[in-house]
Amino acid sequence: MTSPRSSPTPRRADAEQNRCKILAAARTVFASADDDVSMAEVSRRAGVGMATLYRNFPGRRELLEAIYADEVDAICAAAGTIEAGSAQGALVAWLREFFGFVTSKRHVAAELLEHTDRNDPVFGDSRSRVIAAGRPLLAAAQAAQEVREDLTLEQVLDMVHAIAKIPSGSEYVEPILQACLDGLRPVQPHAAALPMH
Amino acid sequence: MTSPRSSPTPRRADAEQNRCKILAAARTVFASADDDVSMAEVSRRAGVGMATLYRNFPGRRELLEAIYADEVDAICAAAGTIEAGSAQGALVAWLREFFGFVTSKRHVAAELLEHTDRNDPVFGDSRSRVIAAGRPLLAAAQAAQEVREDLTLEQVLDMVHAIAKIPSGSEYVEPILQACLDGLRPVQPHAAALPMH
Repeated sequence: MTSPRSSPTPRRADAEQNRCKILAAARTVFASADDDVSMAEVSRRAGVGMATLYRNFPGRRELLEAIYADEVDAICAAAGTIEAGSAQGALVAWLREFFGFVTSKRHVAAELLEHTDRNDPVFGDSRSRVIAAGRPLLAAAQAAQEVREDLTLEQVLDMVHAIAKIPSGSEYVEPILQACLDGLRPVQPHAAALPMH
Repeated sequence: MTSPRSSPTPRRADAEQNRCKILAAARTVFASADDDVSMAEVSRRAGVGMATLYRNFPGRRELLEAIYADEVDAICAAAGTIEAGSAQGALVAWLREFFGFVTSKRHVAAELLEHTDRNDPVFGDSRSRVIAAGRPLLAAAQAAQEVREDLTLEQVLDMVHAIAKIPSGSEYVEPILQACLDGLRPVQPHAAALPMH
């Protein structure tokens, strides 16, 4: 029993700590494993009992959702903190973060999709959050005439997402991504319209 | 019984005609239907009996493969006949044909994939044929310095294919495709490197 004064706080702190330990362990386990990962292994790595694990995350799906939500948070946060020499540079840097989010093995979207309908609110809500976070970056780059005007952020993200899903290694996919990002340049750059003499 | 002189020929001609009628009917049926199409409906539309249908195509999969092969033939043929004002224009026009091939409801690749392993020779062989047909177009556009040098045709086709798979309508996807095709322009256009004064 804890002292009456601090009774709820340590328990909450413990619970929060357990939750963090579980999520950290699950991220590691999902990152290293090529195949299905058991809840038992997550429990072992986190150093918490199965009862604690299941109290926090009733199933594999809830665990995946929590990891996914954390990663979406990170992408959204990055949109506000990214630094680059130009509005276009900031947008592209953030799109590369998003690309990494989609491709990285550490991320669980692909597996979560197997457990979840694509139209599930988990995805719809994440998509809305990512779009809301990135929209100012695109708007700034378009206002600076550094990015073409005929694409919405939804379209830009779907483009990057589509490229990220090409089932090949990063050496193969990287030049494709670069071409697509270069394709965001304004359609008629002023320089190209200059007379050649 | 036919006359001895022409014995094999009419039979072959009939057989060829039946095959054509079946393929034409199957293309129509697959194009119009949102859902599964029965072999019986193909037989009815083609005006041939089920026995004739099954003699030509022992199953749905063989029928799909034959339609698919015809469409691959058409893409390959287009690479040799496309006309445009520039090497880059010809490449882009052909890539748009390929995009149409991937997206069009008339095409059966998606359904065939459900019946077939992606690594099946049907696909590997088609991919090789399409790549061989398109390679001269990319080579010419790169030689003319109208298209960037850092992409192979495999990469360009995978890019277009990835965009074609975005599950949205053509109005939404078209500007994305256009941006990607614009991204094929050389990285440093000479005009952009000119001094501004």
